[in-house]
Amino acid sequence: MAVGAELHARGWSLATSSNYSVTLDRQPLRLLVTASGKHKDRLTEADFVTIDDQGRAVADGAPKSSAETMLHVVLARAADAGAVLHTHSVWGTLLSDRFASQQQLTISGYEMLKALPGVTTHETAITLPILPNTQDIGAMAQDLERLLATAGQKSEGSPPLSAFLIHKHGLYTWGADLDAARRQIEALEFLMECEGRRLMASV
Amino acid sequence: MAVGAELHARGWSLATSSNYSVTLDRQPLRLLVTASGKHKDRLTEADFVTIDDQGRAVADGAPKSSAETMLHVVLARAADAGAVLHTHSVWGTLLSDRFASQQQLTISGYEMLKALPGVTTHETAITLPILPNTQDIGAMAQDLERLLATAGQKSEGSPPLSAFLIHKHGLYTWGADLDAARRQIEALEFLMECEGRRLMASV
Amino acid sequence: MAVGAELHARGWSLATSSNYSVTLDRQPLRLLVTASGKHKDRLTEADFVTIDDQGRAVADGAPKSSAETMLHVVLARAADAGAVLHTHSVWGTLLSDRFASQQQLTISGYEMLKALPGVTTHETAITLPILPNTQDIGAMAQDLERLLATAGQKSEGSPPLSAFLIHKHGLYTWGADLDAARRQIEALEFLMECEGRRLMASV
Amino acid sequence: MAVGAELHARGWSLATSSNYSVTLDRQPLRLLVTASGKHKDRLTEADFVTIDDQGRAVADGAPKSSAETMLHVVLARAADAGAVLHTHSVWGTLLSDRFASQQQLTISGYEMLKALPGVTTHETAITLPILPNTQDIGAMAQDLERLLATAGQKSEGSPPLSAFLIHKHGLYTWGADLDAARRQIEALEFLMECEGRRLMASV
Repeated sequence: MAVGAELHARGWSLATSSNYSVTLDRQPLRLLVTASGKHKDRLTEADFVTIDDQGRAVADGAPKSSAETMLHVVLARAADAGAVLHTHSVWGTLLSDRFASQQQLTISGYEMLKALPGVTTHETAITLPILPNTQDIGAMAQDLERLLATAGQKSEGSPPLSAFLIHKHGLYTWGADLDAARRQIEALEFLMECEGRRLMASV
Repeated sequence: MAVGAELHARGWSLATSSNYSVTLDRQPLRLLVTASGKHKDRLTEADFVTIDDQGRAVADGAPKSSAETMLHVVLARAADAGAVLHTHSVWGTLLSDRFASQQQLTISGYEMLKALPGVTTHETAITLPILPNTQDIGAMAQDLERLLATAGQKSEGSPPLSAFLIHKHGLYTWGADLDAARRQIEALEFLMECEGRRLMASV
Repeated sequence: MAVGAELHARGWSLATSSNYSVTLDRQPLRLLVTASGKHKDRLTEADFVTIDDQGRAVADGAPKSSAETMLHVVLARAADAGAVLHTHSVWGTLLSDRFASQQQLTISGYEMLKALPGVTTHETAITLPILPNTQDIGAMAQDLERLLATAGQKSEGSPPLSAFLIHKHGLYTWGADLDAARRQIEALEFLMECEGRRLMASV
Repeated sequence: MAVGAELHARGWSLATSSNYSVTLDRQPLRLLVTASGKHKDRLTEADFVTIDDQGRAVADGAPKSSAETMLHVVLARAADAGAVLHTHSVWGTLLSDRFASQQQLTISGYEMLKALPGVTTHETAITLPILPNTQDIGAMAQDLERLLATAGQKSEGSPPLSAFLIHKHGLYTWGADLDAARRQIEALEFLMECEGRRLMASV
């Protein structure tokens, strides 16, 4: 809940956008996900829903979970995520549009990259895939599964995939636990702000 | 009151600018409006005035309501607003000037648009009319009534009008209740920041 | 003290820069001024000094008042200031440099101008003189007296001078009381951010 | 600890980046350094480690000190630092890259420079050396010792070296005590933001 308030204060989770999840159990899969349409600066326990591997609420009468719940399920299952954070920031949105035709954003050479999993030197390039936006979350979940499968194959030598962008929509990142995911979101938002301002300065 | 403090903290309501209202009753119309000239970071109950459908304070000895009170009355009456928020932000001010000759600002393709009423997909374009600024609030109120009447006619298929800009002045948005209006103001300020920075980056 | 903390939080009073004063008495002149070299986010009563019309501390053993104390004295005496705020902001610094050769910055057409004294319509142009910076505060105080005398003569019809910039240094504004000065500083910082970003966008 | 929270809030110490130290004793040398990998917004006493002049923890079972501990040791020993602050800010990162080929960033003419040690007038130019980034902290510590030795020789007349940048990594500054280092970091971040925005505006 404190994480929601902080991300909101930074302007990364305005207007009830964004959603977060934590993996509670793996056998069977249980995720705690933010409910739909909540202001992120004042989350309470009642604003989280426990869901199963189909994205369905486990308890009767639970509030509707976030529309993008199935993306969290895919990340927990196929990327072994312990926690997932999704933000809508200005720089993430702008870069997802600027690099939309390349379908990916590459960031390299920054010390801050070391906050991401598997990165031990600034002499690293990470690539954030940019998925097209769609209101068909089932289709987007399939895109994501494909992405994770492909990334798994070619990841030898390079850091594992730990984040992606959705076009004019926002950023997803996941980690072993909430602390890791929070560290990654701060690092990625920082890096995107650097890249965004760098591109503006070099017009 | 907390909303005022937050909008002030974000720099959207500096220097006693901005005003807010909530519709208390409809038969007869009663609005609770911010009093004139108050710093928005420390509003108390005494800084709100209950007014009628002519913008007059209902109680004797009440403080003067905001100069732009009649715009709130028009929105409550003709747009069925349950709550109205008006902010003065840097990006709103800049975009209202940049697009002044077109008399409108169009924003499209962002996921964040879904925070606005009637928007269910990012594949939407919304149009914020830009009214000329004037110190004759009566004239501006008439402009606004005309705008709402016109918007009502052509809104089939497209989302209803839920916000407008005043040139080099600021943004008005209204919703069913204060939560909706707050969600909309955050979404619109976010979208205007995206558009403003995008235009700068593509000089 | 709360004003200091807020201006620091907004990044307008970093690194012990800035100073503030309030006029306590006029016969004889007594000002309460911030002591030299204090961090503005944690001012206590002990960080203010009462000074006379020569800028000397009234009490023995008082801390040294701000180096720019004499500017506050001139403003209290010759501009009838009840409170003076001086900030070092990024936008004020940049604009003071960009317009240094013109020796003034003119801002016009914004609704926010109405937060300044004597301004009743957005159809107003205000001019902020830009003084050269110098470590000789006595000389700067004389420049300021001259400026106030000149402004007094030509001010018929236009709003009175209520602020000026020092080159690559910062902004001074003064008003009838601390609330007025705070309203003005917020309005001027807002307006300078608008102008600064507008200039960048129109490169 | 409050300093950590504030630097984090300003976005200068995101994602467990940055590290801070205070010199506890000089004979023998003892530094209190932030432990590795801690979020800077919630430091507690347990997140600091006391180390000796080899960068080794003095107490058994202490947490691992920051990877860059040896830079703090060099600064305490060769630059007589009483406190060292290291931040990762967007503007510092961008400028370290923009001026990488010159291997230094020069800033001049700002009143804010007076917050740095040995600066008594705005008519001063300070030079921040830009070290290449490397994961070999031993090599970087040697670079730094060389830098400090060279700076010591040529510093007559000009202010002493009190800060340097690491390429695409961040800023180090040091002072007599924590208050001085904090004043310097605020001044330098302010100055870098001014220079960064100035360069963008003059494209």
